[in-house]
Amino acid sequence: MKKVFDEIHGYITLNDLETKIIDSPVFQRLRRIKQTSLAYLVYPGAMHTRFSHSLGTFYLSQKVGEKLQQSGIITSEELNLIRLSSLLHDIGQFPFSHAIEPLYLQLNLSNKILRDEIIRNDGELKEIFEEYSVDVGKILQIYNGDNSFSSIIDSDVDVDRMDYLIRDSRHTGVQLGNLDLERLIDTISYGEDGNIIVLEKGLYSLENFYISRLHMYQAVYYHKTILGYEIYLRHIFKQVVELCCPELFNTSYIKKSVNEGSLVYWDDEWVFSKLYEALSDYNTPDNLKLQIKNFLNRNGPKVVFEEVTFDKLTTPLEELVSKLERYGIPRDAIFPFEEKIKIIDKSKIKVLSKGKYKSLRDLSSTLLKSIPEYINIGRIYVDYKFVNRARDILS
Amino acid sequence: MKKVFDEIHGYITLNDLETKIIDSPVFQRLRRIKQTSLAYLVYPGAMHTRFSHSLGTFYLSQKVGEKLQQSGIITSEELNLIRLSSLLHDIGQFPFSHAIEPLYLQLNLSNKILRDEIIRNDGELKEIFEEYSVDVGKILQIYNGDNSFSSIIDSDVDVDRMDYLIRDSRHTGVQLGNLDLERLIDTISYGEDGNIIVLEKGLYSLENFYISRLHMYQAVYYHKTILGYEIYLRHIFKQVVELCCPELFNTSYIKKSVNEGSLVYWDDEWVFSKLYEALSDYNTPDNLKLQIKNFLNRNGPKVVFEEVTFDKLTTPLEELVSKLERYGIPRDAIFPFEEKIKIIDKSKIKVLSKGKYKSLRDLSSTLLKSIPEYINIGRIYVDYKFVNRARDILS
Amino acid sequence: MKKVFDEIHGYITLNDLETKIIDSPVFQRLRRIKQTSLAYLVYPGAMHTRFSHSLGTFYLSQKVGEKLQQSGIITSEELNLIRLSSLLHDIGQFPFSHAIEPLYLQLNLSNKILRDEIIRNDGELKEIFEEYSVDVGKILQIYNGDNSFSSIIDSDVDVDRMDYLIRDSRHTGVQLGNLDLERLIDTISYGEDGNIIVLEKGLYSLENFYISRLHMYQAVYYHKTILGYEIYLRHIFKQVVELCCPELFNTSYIKKSVNEGSLVYWDDEWVFSKLYEALSDYNTPDNLKLQIKNFLNRNGPKVVFEEVTFDKLTTPLEELVSKLERYGIPRDAIFPFEEKIKIIDKSKIKVLSKGKYKSLRDLSSTLLKSIPEYINIGRIYVDYKFVNRARDILS
Amino acid sequence: MKKVFDEIHGYITLNDLETKIIDSPVFQRLRRIKQTSLAYLVYPGAMHTRFSHSLGTFYLSQKVGEKLQQSGIITSEELNLIRLSSLLHDIGQFPFSHAIEPLYLQLNLSNKILRDEIIRNDGELKEIFEEYSVDVGKILQIYNGDNSFSSIIDSDVDVDRMDYLIRDSRHTGVQLGNLDLERLIDTISYGEDGNIIVLEKGLYSLENFYISRLHMYQAVYYHKTILGYEIYLRHIFKQVVELCCPELFNTSYIKKSVNEGSLVYWDDEWVFSKLYEALSDYNTPDNLKLQIKNFLNRNGPKVVFEEVTFDKLTTPLEELVSKLERYGIPRDAIFPFEEKIKIIDKSKIKVLSKGKYKSLRDLSSTLLKSIPEYINIGRIYVDYKFVNRARDILS
Repeated sequence: MKKVFDEIHGYITLNDLETKIIDSPVFQRLRRIKQTSLAYLVYPGAMHTRFSHSLGTFYLSQKVGEKLQQSGIITSEELNLIRLSSLLHDIGQFPFSHAIEPLYLQLNLSNKILRDEIIRNDGELKEIFEEYSVDVGKILQIYNGDNSFSSIIDSDVDVDRMDYLIRDSRHTGVQLGNLDLERLIDTISYGEDGNIIVLEKGLYSLENFYISRLHMYQAVYYHKTILGYEIYLRHIFKQVVELCCPELFNTSYIKKSVNEGSLVYWDDEWVFSKLYEALSDYNTPDNLKLQIKNFLNRNGPKVVFEEVTFDKLTTPLEELVSKLERYGIPRDAIFPFEEKIKIIDKSKIKVLSKGKYKSLRDLSSTLLKSIPEYINIGRIYVDYKFVNRARDILS
Repeated sequence: MKKVFDEIHGYITLNDLETKIIDSPVFQRLRRIKQTSLAYLVYPGAMHTRFSHSLGTFYLSQKVGEKLQQSGIITSEELNLIRLSSLLHDIGQFPFSHAIEPLYLQLNLSNKILRDEIIRNDGELKEIFEEYSVDVGKILQIYNGDNSFSSIIDSDVDVDRMDYLIRDSRHTGVQLGNLDLERLIDTISYGEDGNIIVLEKGLYSLENFYISRLHMYQAVYYHKTILGYEIYLRHIFKQVVELCCPELFNTSYIKKSVNEGSLVYWDDEWVFSKLYEALSDYNTPDNLKLQIKNFLNRNGPKVVFEEVTFDKLTTPLEELVSKLERYGIPRDAIFPFEEKIKIIDKSKIKVLSKGKYKSLRDLSSTLLKSIPEYINIGRIYVDYKFVNRARDILS
Repeated sequence: MKKVFDEIHGYITLNDLETKIIDSPVFQRLRRIKQTSLAYLVYPGAMHTRFSHSLGTFYLSQKVGEKLQQSGIITSEELNLIRLSSLLHDIGQFPFSHAIEPLYLQLNLSNKILRDEIIRNDGELKEIFEEYSVDVGKILQIYNGDNSFSSIIDSDVDVDRMDYLIRDSRHTGVQLGNLDLERLIDTISYGEDGNIIVLEKGLYSLENFYISRLHMYQAVYYHKTILGYEIYLRHIFKQVVELCCPELFNTSYIKKSVNEGSLVYWDDEWVFSKLYEALSDYNTPDNLKLQIKNFLNRNGPKVVFEEVTFDKLTTPLEELVSKLERYGIPRDAIFPFEEKIKIIDKSKIKVLSKGKYKSLRDLSSTLLKSIPEYINIGRIYVDYKFVNRARDILS
Repeated sequence: MKKVFDEIHGYITLNDLETKIIDSPVFQRLRRIKQTSLAYLVYPGAMHTRFSHSLGTFYLSQKVGEKLQQSGIITSEELNLIRLSSLLHDIGQFPFSHAIEPLYLQLNLSNKILRDEIIRNDGELKEIFEEYSVDVGKILQIYNGDNSFSSIIDSDVDVDRMDYLIRDSRHTGVQLGNLDLERLIDTISYGEDGNIIVLEKGLYSLENFYISRLHMYQAVYYHKTILGYEIYLRHIFKQVVELCCPELFNTSYIKKSVNEGSLVYWDDEWVFSKLYEALSDYNTPDNLKLQIKNFLNRNGPKVVFEEVTFDKLTTPLEELVSKLERYGIPRDAIFPFEEKIKIIDKSKIKVLSKGKYKSLRDLSSTLLKSIPEYINIGRIYVDYKFVNRARDILS
């Protein structure tokens, strides 16, 4: 048994199995991956890591699971599985998380696929699972939605999101993500079909949750400046890796690294180390060196066009990109960004009112009905040297 | 100069004039009027008073005003007036505030009218205003909306609401009212025509404000149980006053009391003292004594019917009341409640985007558009002894 | 089962027995006794009540008890008793607590004696205890120190003090009482002989506790101005009760009231009601009316002499009082105050270090050794009209 | 003008000069030096940086300075200098701060010397200072104690310590460092002779400050495990640098790097990059590789002997080290640590009581008198593989 002191939830108690897991190198690696990637460039306090977020998610899974266990919905064995799954849910995160992941999504490798790979093949984890007779298949089932309790770990309103909204709020200082956590946990449950069940009298806690999430997307996760740096780092990372170690863009190589244990030092620090190596290497192209310095000295790209809407985007970014190019801005100084962000799946929410289930459609006084299902963001960033010119061209 | 330590904002500094005002009996009276009336019966921590709320509102008016002064929008004299107006904005509150005020609204006396009366005629205030050459007329202008800065003190997004949302959140423990205060103040301004002006990039702070307010209405201010007790106390108060001192339902008498200084002990404590007197008086009808005991021992009325909607109410309460009566429930054990609560006046919000004003209509990505303009609540409460019977009748 | 939402600890869950207890009139009375008596006259936010403090103490007894139960130190039955004892520990508090209690201590009636009386003889409590077969004797044993776990409820470091330091900190805004609560609970235990047992590595959490307490004594509980108002109220209360209802200074009458259930309305509100009655009664002496007004309008007595020391007081107050009288200040406008406040009983603290007990004497690096055992306060207050004169006389 | 959002103090406003400073590469470097070095290995949340701490210190210098300016003690020009000095006070911190600095202290290079060097010779800073006609000499005077206001920036109770106690508390979750900040700032002032001046009535805020600091030393800064990792990293760093780039142990080389601007990438990330390089370099000795892996996987050295005392250390560590060696533990697996930590300089504290200055000696009721002047820590750590053996040998 071990206790870790968490700055959000206080003491978090782990049993022997869980202690061995967090002490393993592949879990310690999460100490070196920041939770909010480059958000610290705007909110200097946001330096917290996937390590503490994983512990926090674990803690909340215990709180939520305990309640389900008391109601006879899950067994104590299932609770143990849920604990393990939440503890390990981020084990496959890439260095700088979503800043780098898109490069791998193109290769059909997501952090979830990498997670499953690690859970199946990391040497130390394997030994630990064997020692404690953990059925790895069941953990993977939970991740892959095949288990009735998958939605505790992965759904609109899961313990992962609960933890990160609060944690990111605290570390950024942005109050918007402050949840009414006690009430939320008290008020929601999970159905076997992946539904979120909420007591009618607790609807506002759930509204508060979704709106906090929406606001944190706007104020932090898709913040104009932060996102610009993430795109920039991605661009730099690609070039650097192609120079130093192109095998890292080979998914079989990555998977082999999992097996061989060398992946455990592939983290934010690794990225920085490659940037520093590139800076001091005579062979690095000057242009790349300049980009690295810009990144380190906080001279990132800037937005010259933006559209944020709950509807569809109306402006095709490619046209604007072409226009900028036509007027002389080099293509590799232009960074278009477009994403459709899912906010809420209303069909999955069931409201429990006096013993009966209602869907949102049947309710006449909830904000949940008017929360947008998606938010669409379209932006064009350009290298900071071309900002004024680009704004002129587009105005 | 005086410093008062506030549990929300820290030290609050008052100049000599303001110090004399808060030291006057009519202001000290606010120490004996709870900010959230009977909310403490559900949230035991909610015992805070109009006194600390008035200081907090004063503090925020200084913060907001300072910003407007720095932008050259108001002068330092105007700032002083705004400070005074915010300090005194609640000076006319009735004992137990909105629990008792409706009895006086029927007599065309609101807390705002009483406030103006006090500011014009309270003896000590008069002396203080004279000593410091305060132009009382200008304060009244601000209150009555004739001044361009009235909306700082009284509008959808005024310093009054900012303070109470945060303060009530802290004392109830309900996180829902937690504002992103620093950002909100940084992002809004006030137009001469009573408009709220908000920078486009700060829209989410304003959304957060409105939604916090909506949620606090639901979780606290119109909470089922709390409202039941407020209606019950109103019912008891009416009977007690009619027995002990019916002159208090004479508005000229009330106004005369302001003049004579006897109003300064008309507060929550006064109400309790009348309840206690009635309890120990042989002449008090048994039924009234029982109601008082029920109130003190927390056996209040309970809801047997409820409709909460952003649209119109669909069920006429009178029909249900008649039905209950018909089936034998005494009329004076039935307490219908109906209210249309204004949430947001969207026409007053102007969004400032790159130097141009937009109305909400022109924006495609803000929750403000889908916040309901009104929330309608219809409820029937019955005395706790008749709850089961009433529920049977209505089911 | 019932859940109450506490602004400090979040949801507090009570079983059926405990729910009935808090719903009884004698417990609801605690809603009408402020936790920090008149501290709100300096810290406007300090309006919280014995009711919420009792719930908080109950909650912490569960947290501490759970840990002892897991270590096999207490049984689940004992835990239940500890819960009940902590819930009821303040049930015998006087109106305005320590402001009024000294008048009764002279009559050999303390809040602890009154508590035992109520627990034995309050009608509703009796019924509840019978229904649930509660052995009242065992509760009284805990209170009276005859039980090995009495010190959880009543010792230097008990759950009562833990709750009020945090709660009073939050409501006054004074950070000084902020405990490192999680660690403290994690680090201390209770010995059968009434000792506080602390792990050596957690010593600083215990130091933090004692020093927080000492600081809160200075900043709040014995604050110059607050204490002045408490003495003043005591003085007024005595005169008012002697006029209206001298039987209340008869301890048998008080005990009879417990039996008859009339004590349940003897609370802060009752005091206010008597003040208001006295104010509007032609028979009240003018001087008393003036004092009541001074109290209500916050014109209390002021300190003209003060000595605070960890050693013995060096100035005999009686001499100063005589001097003031000799120079013409009326005796009943002079309020001397002297108290020796116990801070820490070092002989009761055992430090557990690698399985062995040490006493503080054996340790070379703890502040506990230099925390004063007592703090002595001597003060003379005079009516605010005589302040300048009194200061001249004494200077 | 620029606003940065700080998770502790809210918006921090910088003027143009200050904005240019924080945007310069040598200041951005502070984003890559963690405030509490390796504390995150015990308190996972403690990932915050010297960058946000520098901003926070700057903010507090403005708060404290404003008060001094209002009292006519400093001019607005002096306030500007104090702001600049506080903003830049940590600009010379080494990678991993106090974990690495001792290696340089042996070479007579401290972070303060490096700071002065950077302020005098960093190219971009020089340009900025010239553009805004900043008199660099005056900043250096403040740092070097030659200015009457040096103690605001560097004394027992300076804005540096105020910021880090609160900030480190928030990020570790350890409540012990929570200051009564508003009161502290309200209560202290600075004398021309480097004295801390405190109002007698505010003594407890100052006590609270010193004790918080003492507790944070014990719970965080000199925490057994954390310190072990810092010693271990120092040991590894030494070996790695000797292999890769021994010129970094040449102080003239370091100073030259300041001039040439290459120091701006010498930070925590640089250290990690060197560890990663060493790991993947065939020439790195196996033993060093093992140590690096131990460090990264959190298998650090453990304490086998400890003495913490407010008096002198009684056990000579060398003897224990010899004994361990004699019994076969390799010398380079043994890490003795000894430090005398200054807590308080009581001669510098002046208490202001009714217009007169007292020294602590004259007061009979303050904890400040019994706070130890020093705390001495002696410890022996050994590589985790030898822990059991070492404990046997020493027992």
